[in-house]
Amino acid sequence: MKLQIASLKTLPEIRPGDDLAPLIRDAALREGKEIGASTILVLAQKIVSKAEGAMVDLRTIQPSEFAVCWARQWQKDPRAVELVLRQSRRIVKMDRGTIVAETHHGFVAANAGVDQSNVPGDEFAVVLPTDPDLSARRLRLGLNCGAVIISDSFGRPWREGLVGVAIGVSGMDAVVDLRGSCDHEGRPLSATIVARADELAAAASLLMPKAGGVPAVLIDGFEWERNEGTARSLVRRPELDLFR
Amino acid sequence: MKLQIASLKTLPEIRPGDDLAPLIRDAALREGKEIGASTILVLAQKIVSKAEGAMVDLRTIQPSEFAVCWARQWQKDPRAVELVLRQSRRIVKMDRGTIVAETHHGFVAANAGVDQSNVPGDEFAVVLPTDPDLSARRLRLGLNCGAVIISDSFGRPWREGLVGVAIGVSGMDAVVDLRGSCDHEGRPLSATIVARADELAAAASLLMPKAGGVPAVLIDGFEWERNEGTARSLVRRPELDLFR
Repeated sequence: MKLQIASLKTLPEIRPGDDLAPLIRDAALREGKEIGASTILVLAQKIVSKAEGAMVDLRTIQPSEFAVCWARQWQKDPRAVELVLRQSRRIVKMDRGTIVAETHHGFVAANAGVDQSNVPGDEFAVVLPTDPDLSARRLRLGLNCGAVIISDSFGRPWREGLVGVAIGVSGMDAVVDLRGSCDHEGRPLSATIVARADELAAAASLLMPKAGGVPAVLIDGFEWERNEGTARSLVRRPELDLFR
Repeated sequence: MKLQIASLKTLPEIRPGDDLAPLIRDAALREGKEIGASTILVLAQKIVSKAEGAMVDLRTIQPSEFAVCWARQWQKDPRAVELVLRQSRRIVKMDRGTIVAETHHGFVAANAGVDQSNVPGDEFAVVLPTDPDLSARRLRLGLNCGAVIISDSFGRPWREGLVGVAIGVSGMDAVVDLRGSCDHEGRPLSATIVARADELAAAASLLMPKAGGVPAVLIDGFEWERNEGTARSLVRRPELDLFR
């Protein structure tokens, strides 16, 4: 197995209402890159959100008293804080100006995935797509490719730096459960569940500079079992989570 | 930028005392793969540990009372539990049979990185290399390649599944700090530190089936600034860690 990972360089700036599949197909054609049945497309969450209009004009937001209070303590924009709260179903940690929250999807992320970088104008913020699996599925069907992963960059406890992770998946299982199979020595593997879609998102992230401009990456040469998976399977169930 | 990621398939079974660099060079030659100045070699921790003799015969371990007590509660091997404790400088979480611990290097991992899979015989366990950065550096110099990453598979809070991470690095910075640079819209990026070495380890992990047998991966086509980095920079400093 040999992987090739390449980014699309000629995607135009995405605007609300844009149909991503033909834009991506055109960019690939222009660049002489093939998107086939064995291609995994990894797309940055931000352009999916932009295309779906998952952008919020902060001027329309009336911050709650709680948001104003937190914003005052940490010199934040109270409207952005309010937006983070609205995108959250649970606050995991709120300390030193940082809000780590569980989104309505179940993902745990800084600011519940609300992002103000690479957004035109100071008054807009991008939020996560409402149903990233569905976004991925639409794109996969529109492009007729093997799998689609919608990625974002998340921080982690204990380790420095962001890494690419999957928040939407179509065409593959997001996690691969190897329990029941055996290791090289014939001993059963005990707790080996692999977050395949996160590793693919991390690999694609290597070609997505955070300064923006290269939000779509093609991975070829990877072998996987075709399945209609979901990124929700990457969310650890509360009863199994030691760090809830 | 276009990445090619390939695994070495003909590395022999590694034994204590083996000199890895020539074994890897020979395997690459056999397979017609080039290891050059722009190649990043990602090597699974386990074979580095094996080569360095970082294997422990459990029969030599006298478990402490505490280890025996925990092992009895959760049907574990008390000698393996004792080994985990010895590899730890701090227990982060100890619940439902799982020990998440901070190793002497500062990495936070299940069982402090102690592993019994893919080890010959039931009585041996592999521990992390004493100084994985140094192991990486020796390999980089021995192979004269661009960078070396020693990888392991770690779980994460909140998310299901293991992902490849870097525990040793040579020839590159493990994290890239983009603070001070600007996004596509000219707005300064605020908190964008990227865990580059972890993303490379995750990418390589895609070609390392957990069942073993493919512990070395070559990444070509990645562009990076040559630096003598350290995987320790991936360890979040206690005073910055909200989840300590």
